[in-house]
Amino acid sequence: MKLHGYFRSSAAFRVRIALNLKGLTYENIFHHLVKGEQKATDYLSLNPQGLVPALEVEGDVLTQSLAICEYLDERYPDPPFLPADPMARAKVRAFAQVIACDIHPVQNLKILKRVKSLADGDAAKVWARDTIAEGLAACAALIAGKPGPYCFGAAVTLADILLIPQIANARRFDAPVPARLLEVEHACLALDAFRRALPENQPDAE
Amino acid sequence: MKLHGYFRSSAAFRVRIALNLKGLTYENIFHHLVKGEQKATDYLSLNPQGLVPALEVEGDVLTQSLAICEYLDERYPDPPFLPADPMARAKVRAFAQVIACDIHPVQNLKILKRVKSLADGDAAKVWARDTIAEGLAACAALIAGKPGPYCFGAAVTLADILLIPQIANARRFDAPVPARLLEVEHACLALDAFRRALPENQPDAE
Repeated sequence: MKLHGYFRSSAAFRVRIALNLKGLTYENIFHHLVKGEQKATDYLSLNPQGLVPALEVEGDVLTQSLAICEYLDERYPDPPFLPADPMARAKVRAFAQVIACDIHPVQNLKILKRVKSLADGDAAKVWARDTIAEGLAACAALIAGKPGPYCFGAAVTLADILLIPQIANARRFDAPVPARLLEVEHACLALDAFRRALPENQPDAE
Repeated sequence: MKLHGYFRSSAAFRVRIALNLKGLTYENIFHHLVKGEQKATDYLSLNPQGLVPALEVEGDVLTQSLAICEYLDERYPDPPFLPADPMARAKVRAFAQVIACDIHPVQNLKILKRVKSLADGDAAKVWARDTIAEGLAACAALIAGKPGPYCFGAAVTLADILLIPQIANARRFDAPVPARLLEVEHACLALDAFRRALPENQPDAE
């Protein structure tokens, strides 16, 4: 498997965690997003969206980090990323989607560039911080009162895979992170699969 | 089941299609998003994010439209929303996530209000149109050369459930829709499950 990513892309970070948790080996191919390498013709032929991550697997190419995580979970079921019961699965997926749909796409590099083109000063930073703060507060509310150490109890799930990269983004923009989520981060970063996936541990880190 | 929605919310529209395709009956509860009814205390106790849709089911509440669609598919497998093979499932989910992650959250009412607060004139409309045009072009590329009539062949999938509401949003903002996607729309709107879910066919339509 070949993972096309970038050290600081939180979507690629998710897939690195997922691959590590499943105990899979993969080759990293890095594309420097700030230099626009994801828009090179060669890469666009793999992923017409010109985004990372993309996973070359089974002679084909998969895109969209959540779809890749669910693929890995179906193809390599152990350890599972989702509980067995449909209602419990839906709760984990909803938490993951607050991050994947409502936070991350609204505060990514591309959108913040666009905000900067419309407004001066700190507008982009405030935009990112507000989006992350509001979204992480919703995440905390979704798991309020549930036992830890992970988002949904004693086992790592898709929710944790999404949360840890989003907390890294929160720090970049000085957004507050609810205490319950920091506890989850502490538990996750005790695991080698999460630590090896950290942006600062990638060969392309600056 | 009780579906909390709004006629024009494309995320609620997705869930209406999904419920109809599964042949499920449900009670509609509408919240007027422009009037801010989704931020009422009663509703926030159901969904702390203050967003629609939310589905009351099995004595609990599910949020996030994609998570709700996958729940319905797992709980009521016939007709399936995803193919059986993990690679094929990942392709359908990736298409759905281009819309659910990269298009819709960047052009929804909340974000466009924020853009309007930063920039005058047509900035919000141009923002929405560009986001939708770029995203739908990526969707068309993902299924280029694949047979129809639906996104992924002869059976309706999660991809179609996401696409039809996004095409409705494209029209609102004069964004171009690739011909292949219009053909899919034509096929979907021949089905009663899609037609009954249309915004203009909801009791709260204006």
